Amino acid sequence: MIYSTYRLIILSGLIATLLLHSCSPGQQSDLTEQDPLPSWNEGHSRTSIINFVQDVTNEESPDFIAVSDRIAVFDNDGNLWSEKPLYFQLFFAMDRVKELAPQHPEWEAEQPFKAVLENDMSELIKQGEHGLLKIVMSTHAGNTTEEFEGIVKNWLSIARHPRFDRPYTDLVYQPMLELIMYLQDNNFKTFIVSGGGIEFMRPWVEQVYNIPRDQVVGSSIKTEFLIEEGEPVIRRLPEIDFIDDKEGKPVGINRFIGRKPVFCSGNSDGDLAMMQWTASGEGKRFMLYLHHTDSAREWAYDRDSSVGRLDKGLDEAEAKGWTVINMKEDWKFVYPFELNEQ
Amino acid sequence: MIYSTYRLIILSGLIATLLLHSCSPGQQSDLTEQDPLPSWNEGHSRTSIINFVQDVTNEESPDFIAVSDRIAVFDNDGNLWSEKPLYFQLFFAMDRVKELAPQHPEWEAEQPFKAVLENDMSELIKQGEHGLLKIVMSTHAGNTTEEFEGIVKNWLSIARHPRFDRPYTDLVYQPMLELIMYLQDNNFKTFIVSGGGIEFMRPWVEQVYNIPRDQVVGSSIKTEFLIEEGEPVIRRLPEIDFIDDKEGKPVGINRFIGRKPVFCSGNSDGDLAMMQWTASGEGKRFMLYLHHTDSAREWAYDRDSSVGRLDKGLDEAEAKGWTVINMKEDWKFVYPFELNEQ
Repeated sequence: MIYSTYRLIILSGLIATLLLHSCSPGQQSDLTEQDPLPSWNEGHSRTSIINFVQDVTNEESPDFIAVSDRIAVFDNDGNLWSEKPLYFQLFFAMDRVKELAPQHPEWEAEQPFKAVLENDMSELIKQGEHGLLKIVMSTHAGNTTEEFEGIVKNWLSIARHPRFDRPYTDLVYQPMLELIMYLQDNNFKTFIVSGGGIEFMRPWVEQVYNIPRDQVVGSSIKTEFLIEEGEPVIRRLPEIDFIDDKEGKPVGINRFIGRKPVFCSGNSDGDLAMMQWTASGEGKRFMLYLHHTDSAREWAYDRDSSVGRLDKGLDEAEAKGWTVINMKEDWKFVYPFELNEQ
Repeated sequence: MIYSTYRLIILSGLIATLLLHSCSPGQQSDLTEQDPLPSWNEGHSRTSIINFVQDVTNEESPDFIAVSDRIAVFDNDGNLWSEKPLYFQLFFAMDRVKELAPQHPEWEAEQPFKAVLENDMSELIKQGEHGLLKIVMSTHAGNTTEEFEGIVKNWLSIARHPRFDRPYTDLVYQPMLELIMYLQDNNFKTFIVSGGGIEFMRPWVEQVYNIPRDQVVGSSIKTEFLIEEGEPVIRRLPEIDFIDDKEGKPVGINRFIGRKPVFCSGNSDGDLAMMQWTASGEGKRFMLYLHHTDSAREWAYDRDSSVGRLDKGLDEAEAKGWTVINMKEDWKFVYPFELNEQ
């Protein structure tokens, strides 16, 4: 049911796109060919994706990949949805700090909570990774998995992104939704492999990306199974279990998927290790970096950004001939809502 | 490809079964109805499984379960294949000790290795869990994930079970293969949730059970991503990451699957927590215990067994009306090779 809703949304986007451009002969031919990537402009990125998929799914090709080996992994933050001005999960954590503050009067004088309560972003960033971890532990643990899921869903239904004044889940990338569906239609099994929290993603990825909950690899805290008042619960503990970032990504892929991917999509240096891991397999592979170059529709950043830095990854992509999406040039639309605004 | 081979094997088993019994009118009617569980005798277990599946997949039923919620979990040792006289992974570990012994002359005087090298089972069992852990750490770590997979595959191709003198993977249960396929045909997503090592299971479960590698939850040791001589590898470290047993099973289910199962199949007290977790969900659920009652064709054991003890689980199953398979009564065949021997 979720899947059909999802297909309907994607499909209506596709139809809208085709109708919008129906006077252009190029789009006319797309219509007859059932263009799988209607929000992608003609160019190297689009062509190389389609060539790869057509090649490895062709049984006659020397590059043919068996269905069971068609594993595709996608980073999430900055790759399937935006990550500016901060990772969206941090906005969630900050809102949680404000909500829980009445029960923690000590936070008014204690960093990093003080910075959050005073909306002092520069101080918060100064608190670094250790500060962020402290916030996550204080806001993501203590409750049961069911309670936490309810909190995430509720937050997503009311929170608004500061720049776009829209739900955060509106800020997913239309071209990436099409890419996921295109790969799924060609019998790729699609996984998210994110530094974000697994249990922060699971409540919404199924509906938004059509990726099942069990195909989400991410960071996690420890949990514990208990019988409380006769009812079995899983309680979230304030202790890191696994950080699924950088060298952790191939480790997470190995643990959860157990097979080397043949398609890897990411946008930052945090994705470089899983790109290298994917590239190291035998046979044809596809490594895809998203380069944020569009300050008008989204954001432009790379080597100097603290969130989503793309520096070594850009060099390695150039050196090894991996495909780099130029967001500004390659994407007709960034967000699904642009389709309705035209 | 693997999937079709698998279906062919199951199907040929099914046809053989039907042909064998073609003089019985009961079996004749099975043929016209395309019996999904031909190796199961008529009785409460078989009936309750079929009633459950028919009920929850019927859109008109108040018990209907959406496809995305059809999560089925199966313990492995003693539930999908035998576990006697010892967990098969321990035979693997013991063979590894013998293979690695020339590089470890100190093992000749050091327990638990000494017991293994001297085939002294009673001493080995005395060494307890700590001893077993020591053996696993010494034999399952140090190599890369690719090397380990090769070692497991090679062992499975040459090792023979002491009682049956057959490859260990011959000792899977034909009725359970049919049950897995029946659930898959009804759009259940089937997972293994085992105390055994994930990376010990992954090399063969796909072919043997038709369960993809990423649908295997199990115990694991830590791993590390490294670039060695320019090549990315994942190296296995001699450090426990996670024990997927007892209360660990619902924790593993939550971590890997992220959704409460609606169908849970196990055979020991080690599966009780995941039974309770499954049972605690809203809507219709199915909890299935396999009781080993067949000393002639397999083994008979329950409350007093050190391997695969079923004691509290049996009490709780009786108290709560969970389905308990009586292997001797309920199964026409235990192992697939019996089909060819008749």
